[in-house]
Amino acid sequence: MKIVIKNAWILTMNERMEQFPKGYMITDGEKILETGAMDSLPDDITFDECIDAKGAILLPGMVNTHTHIGMIPFRSLGDDYPDRLRRFLFPLENECMNERLAYTSAKYAIAEMQLAGVTTFFDMYYFEQQLAEAAEEMQSRGILAETVIDSVTVDVPKPMGGLQYAQTFMPKWQGKRRIQASVAPHAPYSNTIEVLQQADALSQTYDVPWMMHVSEMDFEMKKFRDEYNQTPIEFLEEIGVLSPRLVAAHCIHLSDHDIELLKKYDVKVAHCIGANTKSAKGVARVRDLLSAGIAVGLGTDGPSSGNTLDLFSQMRLFANFHKTYLQDRSAFPAEEIVKLATCGGAAVLGLEKQIGSIEAGKQADFILVETDSVNMYPIFDPYSALVYSANASNVRDVFIAGKQVVAGKKLVDFDEVQLRSELAEAMEQCQFKTKALNAMKE
Amino acid sequence: MKIVIKNAWILTMNERMEQFPKGYMITDGEKILETGAMDSLPDDITFDECIDAKGAILLPGMVNTHTHIGMIPFRSLGDDYPDRLRRFLFPLENECMNERLAYTSAKYAIAEMQLAGVTTFFDMYYFEQQLAEAAEEMQSRGILAETVIDSVTVDVPKPMGGLQYAQTFMPKWQGKRRIQASVAPHAPYSNTIEVLQQADALSQTYDVPWMMHVSEMDFEMKKFRDEYNQTPIEFLEEIGVLSPRLVAAHCIHLSDHDIELLKKYDVKVAHCIGANTKSAKGVARVRDLLSAGIAVGLGTDGPSSGNTLDLFSQMRLFANFHKTYLQDRSAFPAEEIVKLATCGGAAVLGLEKQIGSIEAGKQADFILVETDSVNMYPIFDPYSALVYSANASNVRDVFIAGKQVVAGKKLVDFDEVQLRSELAEAMEQCQFKTKALNAMKE
Ligand SMILES: [Zn+2]
Ligand SMILES: [Zn+2]
Repeated sequence: MKIVIKNAWILTMNERMEQFPKGYMITDGEKILETGAMDSLPDDITFDECIDAKGAILLPGMVNTHTHIGMIPFRSLGDDYPDRLRRFLFPLENECMNERLAYTSAKYAIAEMQLAGVTTFFDMYYFEQQLAEAAEEMQSRGILAETVIDSVTVDVPKPMGGLQYAQTFMPKWQGKRRIQASVAPHAPYSNTIEVLQQADALSQTYDVPWMMHVSEMDFEMKKFRDEYNQTPIEFLEEIGVLSPRLVAAHCIHLSDHDIELLKKYDVKVAHCIGANTKSAKGVARVRDLLSAGIAVGLGTDGPSSGNTLDLFSQMRLFANFHKTYLQDRSAFPAEEIVKLATCGGAAVLGLEKQIGSIEAGKQADFILVETDSVNMYPIFDPYSALVYSANASNVRDVFIAGKQVVAGKKLVDFDEVQLRSELAEAMEQCQFKTKALNAMKE
Repeated sequence: MKIVIKNAWILTMNERMEQFPKGYMITDGEKILETGAMDSLPDDITFDECIDAKGAILLPGMVNTHTHIGMIPFRSLGDDYPDRLRRFLFPLENECMNERLAYTSAKYAIAEMQLAGVTTFFDMYYFEQQLAEAAEEMQSRGILAETVIDSVTVDVPKPMGGLQYAQTFMPKWQGKRRIQASVAPHAPYSNTIEVLQQADALSQTYDVPWMMHVSEMDFEMKKFRDEYNQTPIEFLEEIGVLSPRLVAAHCIHLSDHDIELLKKYDVKVAHCIGANTKSAKGVARVRDLLSAGIAVGLGTDGPSSGNTLDLFSQMRLFANFHKTYLQDRSAFPAEEIVKLATCGGAAVLGLEKQIGSIEAGKQADFILVETDSVNMYPIFDPYSALVYSANASNVRDVFIAGKQVVAGKKLVDFDEVQLRSELAEAMEQCQFKTKALNAMKE
């Protein structure tokens, strides 16, 4: 099977950052076979399918390196409240979250990501077995990691039970093509040393990345300083869990020594600029991380923290925040930011050999972004257009492992309206909305 | 003529911030007659037209308080270059900008704003006579102000000739329903004292707001400190041009005394968070301005500075930047930000009696934002949804003075494709693209 995409503005995101303003790409239905300029497209090949991109920008599918896909029900709830977590999130999660709600939320969230050009994600939440099934069903690529925390959770009735959950869950997904199962201790302060070490061991056994929120909270920094005279990252080194398999989400508060340690152990960083700044927590030192040679990707965080699951809004916020913090309008030119959203994210998830660029042999995970919407003209620099002008609604077509999942801004195999009503029914069943609105009135 | 909009989630943005989650609004085809909850809609009225909003959010049309609509050709050109103005903008403007290019750009820009829910704008550029005609033709509401600067410009062959231009231009538009003509000295440092005083006098004579970039640049602050031992705003007070008619764009660098002066003279502020932070200039003290009781609105700046002309991206950047700068996640709750984009902007333009809220007697300038797109579910707080989830492509219908200009995301009386090809032809005629690409290669 041979499929050709013609007349696309191809951003390969390869090492040389090659682009073909009028280019073609051939896939075998799963992998990329070749790409190049239209005038070098051989005449003598016949194709099973030919897609005319009509000048759309073709780039690798975006990688959302940190999210919580079970949390769609919480979107727009208590956004600006200082005590949001304790007032809305924890009580509602305890009262309402269940297998069906998490699963319908996950399908909805994956649909939202696909429609926004996100083809791969790294999730941490509860009921990850169901969320992995949702990802499999929706044909996305993802790492699904069961949360471990020192309290009773909605899916395991004992503190840190997520670890046992992961022990059963992870082997089930071994050797799957697009889905990996993993484990995600909530944070260094909400788990025992043993749990953190066992999570690291599990990740090693099954050879998958694991994830944790690290150096995100002021109280977290204080706690480790007070108790250990260390930073959380120094603490994690001491207990022996820093490795290239760890994806540390946030890393807002980093010392120079922390950055040295992250580099030394090749730890990866999921940077969530939108969630970090909406919650007034601060701006991570991404320029320093990248200068040190540390892999950094972009993450949306969950829909109750970042509100949307698309990386366009993250790229825009990234540009403006980092330029302003560095007091340099030329810092992070747009192409560097598109890198973070594509090949950067792929490297964070350890998938740099499979995805993240348009190159022969890689998985055909790619997206087409329309250039004929009113906000996208003229285009002198396609990276600028993606970072400063485009929004998630400009994504037209999306392919994952060669399979088209979004065509003309619509899901191919699923119905957006039906996904929403399934989620609405699951929310109705546990009286989510009623309870949420009551909490807002209190 | 009576038109009713039914089943809308109405955000009136009136003083009491009333909302009707299931509401109706009646217009006479130009003005708002009444609004309320669906269950209080009288049975016995007949309507000439009935529009079912199907749960969309209805709010006042947004007000873009500072832009340059002639500059669409520059979008995505040299965004991340430190010497962008001198390398790309000034040379290309001098070589290429002409009446036709400015006019076709203006029509395109106004279409972009309408499609994004911006119904009113305050522009400063050249060829403002043609831009005002474009606004009239496109049926938008706006103040069009001719730039005055101490150099030869593309439309007047002598330094500060814009003032004379304005003297002829302004009387032509007296008494027009939607369009006002005005004058806009480029900045305090690029004009003589006499010109600034004459601009102020013109604004008084014709009773329209005038505009100027103020306290935006580091070199501007230094110049006034060095030459006068004053801030630009202290200087403007001394020469007697501060008044309620002045709209000061940017105001990034303000002392406490500056804020006192702005309050004392009731000067208005156009805050352009996107342009200010993309160019790494800083974050204006909006919390302090509002606490002092100064009117503040949001502006996109031109398409070469802010890239898009919609206020959704500005609202999102506003929230994240101001929360982070104030180190307070509860600062500027979403409803305050929607205020800035609507009634706040109306007050900045001196149009608070005509527009900015959904109230009987006001102009029927309003927009419907879809709630059934994937990024807009669920909605516990419609303001949160607008600020944190929505993008410009979620705007479905737009009305200005009762006239529908956008229906189902399409322009009603214009063809987007044709507006683009008219602009493309004008750009082709002056070889804009070729020259721009050459400048990028240099
Ligand atoms: Zn998180
Ligand atoms: Zn400006």
